[in-house]
Amino acid sequence: MPRITTIDVTDVRFPTSLSMDGSDAMNKDGDYSATYVAIRTDGGLAGFGFTFTIGRGNDVCTLAAQRRAEPLVGRDVDEVIGDLGATYRDLKSDSQMRWLGPDKGVEHLALAAVMNAVWDLAARAAGKPLWRLLVDMTPEELVDTADLTYLSDVLTREQAIAMLEEMRPTHEERIAELEQTGYPCYTTSAGWLGYSDDKLRRLCAEAVASGYGHIKLKVGADLEDDIRRCRIAREEIGWDRHLMIDANQVWDVPQAIEWVKALAEFKPLWIEEPTSPDDVLGHAAVRKAVAPIGVATGEHGMNRVLFKQMFQAEAIDFCQLDSARLASINEIVSVYLMAKKFGVPVCPHAGGVGLCELVQHLSVFDYVAVSGSLENRVTEFVDHLHEHFTDPCIVENGAYRLPSRPGYSAEMHAASVAEYAYPDGAYWATRHGAVAAV
Amino acid sequence: MPRITTIDVTDVRFPTSLSMDGSDAMNKDGDYSATYVAIRTDGGLAGFGFTFTIGRGNDVCTLAAQRRAEPLVGRDVDEVIGDLGATYRDLKSDSQMRWLGPDKGVEHLALAAVMNAVWDLAARAAGKPLWRLLVDMTPEELVDTADLTYLSDVLTREQAIAMLEEMRPTHEERIAELEQTGYPCYTTSAGWLGYSDDKLRRLCAEAVASGYGHIKLKVGADLEDDIRRCRIAREEIGWDRHLMIDANQVWDVPQAIEWVKALAEFKPLWIEEPTSPDDVLGHAAVRKAVAPIGVATGEHGMNRVLFKQMFQAEAIDFCQLDSARLASINEIVSVYLMAKKFGVPVCPHAGGVGLCELVQHLSVFDYVAVSGSLENRVTEFVDHLHEHFTDPCIVENGAYRLPSRPGYSAEMHAASVAEYAYPDGAYWATRHGAVAAV
Repeated sequence: MPRITTIDVTDVRFPTSLSMDGSDAMNKDGDYSATYVAIRTDGGLAGFGFTFTIGRGNDVCTLAAQRRAEPLVGRDVDEVIGDLGATYRDLKSDSQMRWLGPDKGVEHLALAAVMNAVWDLAARAAGKPLWRLLVDMTPEELVDTADLTYLSDVLTREQAIAMLEEMRPTHEERIAELEQTGYPCYTTSAGWLGYSDDKLRRLCAEAVASGYGHIKLKVGADLEDDIRRCRIAREEIGWDRHLMIDANQVWDVPQAIEWVKALAEFKPLWIEEPTSPDDVLGHAAVRKAVAPIGVATGEHGMNRVLFKQMFQAEAIDFCQLDSARLASINEIVSVYLMAKKFGVPVCPHAGGVGLCELVQHLSVFDYVAVSGSLENRVTEFVDHLHEHFTDPCIVENGAYRLPSRPGYSAEMHAASVAEYAYPDGAYWATRHGAVAAV
Repeated sequence: MPRITTIDVTDVRFPTSLSMDGSDAMNKDGDYSATYVAIRTDGGLAGFGFTFTIGRGNDVCTLAAQRRAEPLVGRDVDEVIGDLGATYRDLKSDSQMRWLGPDKGVEHLALAAVMNAVWDLAARAAGKPLWRLLVDMTPEELVDTADLTYLSDVLTREQAIAMLEEMRPTHEERIAELEQTGYPCYTTSAGWLGYSDDKLRRLCAEAVASGYGHIKLKVGADLEDDIRRCRIAREEIGWDRHLMIDANQVWDVPQAIEWVKALAEFKPLWIEEPTSPDDVLGHAAVRKAVAPIGVATGEHGMNRVLFKQMFQAEAIDFCQLDSARLASINEIVSVYLMAKKFGVPVCPHAGGVGLCELVQHLSVFDYVAVSGSLENRVTEFVDHLHEHFTDPCIVENGAYRLPSRPGYSAEMHAASVAEYAYPDGAYWATRHGAVAAV
């Protein structure tokens, strides 16, 4: 009976602010970071997971994840991964920690980090990539892992099982299809706000050459700049490909409506994060006002209850759930099931550190076992920081190749963790020394 | 020019779980705790503030508050308290920390703790109780401190100023009235779930004898128990006083409706926290189904955007904002102003550690400067832990007496902080030793 011996949580930060990678109207200088969890066992098996942050505060998240993980140390591995619903509920049920949310902010991110590592452990133990582990579970088994609390007004256990059951006979057909085509993705790498017009134009041309059918631009800092940048993008990608725009929450509701209308001539497929991620009714108002431009949000969607309301209020056209902000598969499955019921396509948020590695599993799972559809579905891809992962995602011709190695693709190279551990890793120790020396 | 020299943040925990004080259907064993902030200056002035938690996780909150407070150290005191809107926006605008919310969870609680101390500092510097500092600000000054981001679809700066302006001529009348009567409150001390029937009956009788017109019971663990307990309460308080019930979020929406209907015979004034605090549309559904029983929520209301939607969706009859979960006066004023506009009475959440000390200031401010009404307004009071504060609230005949000393009444006795600091204070060090010895 192997046991969990240690769980290490490391504050890992990459100095992305230096190159303006990831810059947008709200987040001008993020240092893409991970609260990185490594579960070690005495049986040789290990599990890795993380949540994603953008720098300061990652120490707070790291402490929270350490506390969340403590009850797992010393426990029997088979018991922990044998009932992933019970493990999740155990960790989540700490009523003292619950007060700090519930189900939101640092404590929820920390739970996501820990449970992502537990799911990685489970998939490795099964010798399967995470998407395959999920697909192979019976509907009952899968729904038993899902957090359905506060959802029974829109989704019962029985409905969830029935939806999954319906898709089972055709799983293998869709897997075979994805093995041929991959899962379609779009690139955000072209359109960061800090890039010059020349760089934007060059990256758009490169994206087209690489086979992308969707390109996303950051907007929201200056309307004239946005008009010029959208024009450049359209010149490069033409009108047969999709352009999406992303405001990263900088607007109030009336301003969002006005600004998006001023960009309507560029026919964006969606406006992403037009306002506060908490504002269900605000998104519904924006959606009504800017149609046929779609409304997308979700990377800051704090939990399943928020998404439930987004669906109930018909507030969004695209659900961009985040694999490291929702509390891992246990909560993500619930959102996918609700999205299916309400007919809203899920286009997961990715980028950051390792989010692409995670969401490729989610998208495959969705197509194979939940939605059965690729219509209006495209998963984000950002081409940076993959070199730090032992099983990096592979994108070809605008599509994610199916991950094939056991696990959730969440493991980072030990050398990367050591180099970028904050503040004592080699990179930061040196940099701090250099800054101090100036 | 006095400067801020140090900001100490202490993890203070009281062992309330031992006596089941504070027990309810969701929170069975809270150790009422404070993330306690002390701002020291080289001019002799100090400021104290906190956020409230219930035990584990308070260390995470403490670290977050330390990080939030760092930019204030070394700054000129007059500058910090001379523009309380700018100080709040500066602290809040850290875009890296924002990612961990935004405006919710641990990071937001930490901001609340720090800004509560800044407001205490400002009130002490002015030689006024906090409520008086607020009342004496011009409408423009006050609104300039308020966080109106994401609210312009329901409240503009101009509307806010006009609402406050309208109340100014009659401020002193209402102050004189409150100096006579105090501000009405209700007691939760009688109805904790962990108390026996005998204790419940005795405490209800005592509450009546003490002059309370409102009594609140915890419900939601077992329906038969709830029926019996409500009956006992009604036997003791009669039908001319108000009974409120509080489920602390244990129900899904359909279950909430069913359960509350089963208790309708006891004619509760409100059902508090029937379901997830994030579920705006859920609360609206419950409210519609259980009328004329009112719906109350807010102690876990994470930010002003949530309250905006609660008002827009006509989801609540009573707004129970929390003085240590919203990011201090800067966000609280925004919620009071929206509540006024939508005609929803604010009955602040209190209890915990020191929340009564804070909310007495808020309620006085509301009556004098915002709502001008006591109709359907009653502020929570829980009679424990006041002995740890240097300026404890005083409740007589079911009403808070007006606080008169300078500040926000947030300072704890140094001896209490030292005794209950976790894990190294005398109480915990001893207790840990005792537990280890068993």
